[in-house]
Amino acid sequence: MPTTRKIDYIKKMKEGLQMLGAIEAGGTKFVCAIATEDGTIIEKVQIPTEIPDTTIPKVLEFFQDQRISALGIGSFGPLDVHPDSETYGFITSTPKPGWINFPFVKTMKEKLQVPVAFDTDVNAAVWGEFHAGAGKNLNSCLYITVGTGIGAGAVAERKLIHGWSHPEMGHISLRRHSDDHFPGVCPYHRDCLEGLAAGPAIEKRWGQKGDALPVDHPAWEMEAHYLAQALMQYVLILSPEKIIMGGGVMKQRHLFPLIRSKVEQLAGNFLTLPAMDTFIVPPALKDDSGAMGAILMAQQINSGN
Amino acid sequence: MPTTRKIDYIKKMKEGLQMLGAIEAGGTKFVCAIATEDGTIIEKVQIPTEIPDTTIPKVLEFFQDQRISALGIGSFGPLDVHPDSETYGFITSTPKPGWINFPFVKTMKEKLQVPVAFDTDVNAAVWGEFHAGAGKNLNSCLYITVGTGIGAGAVAERKLIHGWSHPEMGHISLRRHSDDHFPGVCPYHRDCLEGLAAGPAIEKRWGQKGDALPVDHPAWEMEAHYLAQALMQYVLILSPEKIIMGGGVMKQRHLFPLIRSKVEQLAGNFLTLPAMDTFIVPPALKDDSGAMGAILMAQQINSGN
Repeated sequence: MPTTRKIDYIKKMKEGLQMLGAIEAGGTKFVCAIATEDGTIIEKVQIPTEIPDTTIPKVLEFFQDQRISALGIGSFGPLDVHPDSETYGFITSTPKPGWINFPFVKTMKEKLQVPVAFDTDVNAAVWGEFHAGAGKNLNSCLYITVGTGIGAGAVAERKLIHGWSHPEMGHISLRRHSDDHFPGVCPYHRDCLEGLAAGPAIEKRWGQKGDALPVDHPAWEMEAHYLAQALMQYVLILSPEKIIMGGGVMKQRHLFPLIRSKVEQLAGNFLTLPAMDTFIVPPALKDDSGAMGAILMAQQINSGN
Repeated sequence: MPTTRKIDYIKKMKEGLQMLGAIEAGGTKFVCAIATEDGTIIEKVQIPTEIPDTTIPKVLEFFQDQRISALGIGSFGPLDVHPDSETYGFITSTPKPGWINFPFVKTMKEKLQVPVAFDTDVNAAVWGEFHAGAGKNLNSCLYITVGTGIGAGAVAERKLIHGWSHPEMGHISLRRHSDDHFPGVCPYHRDCLEGLAAGPAIEKRWGQKGDALPVDHPAWEMEAHYLAQALMQYVLILSPEKIIMGGGVMKQRHLFPLIRSKVEQLAGNFLTLPAMDTFIVPPALKDDSGAMGAILMAQQINSGN
């Protein structure tokens, strides 16, 4: 922890402010954060995602040092997010070894003795961007992450969308690019969006990681083809005011103009959309969207909302 | 108007109850209804959808006889449903002759001097089913109509979904059935969901109207293929607790088991869904979903919500 931050933090503790905790549990790392009651993140650590027996004690150790009054968790899934369910707060059928049926909320509640808010990683991210990032002052927006996997969360009418369960937007089916004969890598669907366009699909199709491929490589036109098609399905079904694209693959900033131009083409004269460069944007909170969303979730559960 | 109903209605008027008006404006007919303040429909007429100059005077005549305190409209679209827009309450770019840029809300407000609530026909229908039909006691549901066109509306977190505009769920793109070489009939997209699976597509592909095709005709397996695919996209993006399927094509009740079995197949071991016969159902309000939703919209605007 940087010394100045530590001093600042101790000062705030002494002032009697309540602290909030956040976990952004991703496929490769857990980001754990502490924020002041007003949502300012004052400390953040990364812990690798291994098996629960290795990762969770490190996470608990981090929070046990602090005096948090509530915890927000945005986690990789699928999750049981249904409050009335017996397995509420569990990671359910993930292919990630060791995490199937992990009782995430129960474990944290028991060990930390604080109220815990729980949702998907992408719901946390869209919630963060909606309140404090690129979606500020809107009534709706969508956040999609394109990385090791693909997932998205949406806010409509100022609320995070849930229903029977949480959305699984990364697994929609798409029309194939005419030059693409790659079978796809999704263990469930083979060639759904995630199977065709997540980081591992790019790497396996082209024989090298995305960040090693030059800007004019045909990989990017194909990637934009799939992502634009997916965005158009989301637009037709949800009509979000803004689409925020994050995750490792979207660090390739040259993808943005490619995707925007393809979405515009797909909209044609059927849909009038907002100006593309304000409609499809990177996250304003950079890599903090998920942690910020989890902090806001903790804030809400703390204030009883 | 049936005599007993008329007597009943006059009685209620004398009791000083407020009346509510509803219009379900469809591509072939306008359904106009009057309901008591508690939402009971006491009168209903159908007026053919011709050009506005012919249809609207008949609609006004019907309502001018009554003393309604608010009007709800569920209309064919696309519509401008954005309250801050200069063209709020207009039908916008419809291919239907005479209705482009028709100022629906303004016309009704000026002539009837009552507050007017305005949304798409399918949003009205899902709102009706959500409050008084198959979606009662849920937090989310989706209504899809399959008829002359295809459209859908959704409730999530107990709210009708809007964003930049209203959804256009009938125009999502799908993977083609391997036996289908029909080009599609959508004037915008050719072979989107509506272009491949609405009533006119069935008629044009097979050379006769759907209701003339026998139950074991291959048309139905293909129709179920497209509709199940569409439902799966909606499920992955919205996760509704229930899907209600209405419209002329869905009067072919044998489609329901076909669609349910295909949705179950698509869910595979990736998604756990509710039991299919309670998950994919016909409208509980039969042909009144839209009129009931418009009544409820009138009720809300009347009570200032």
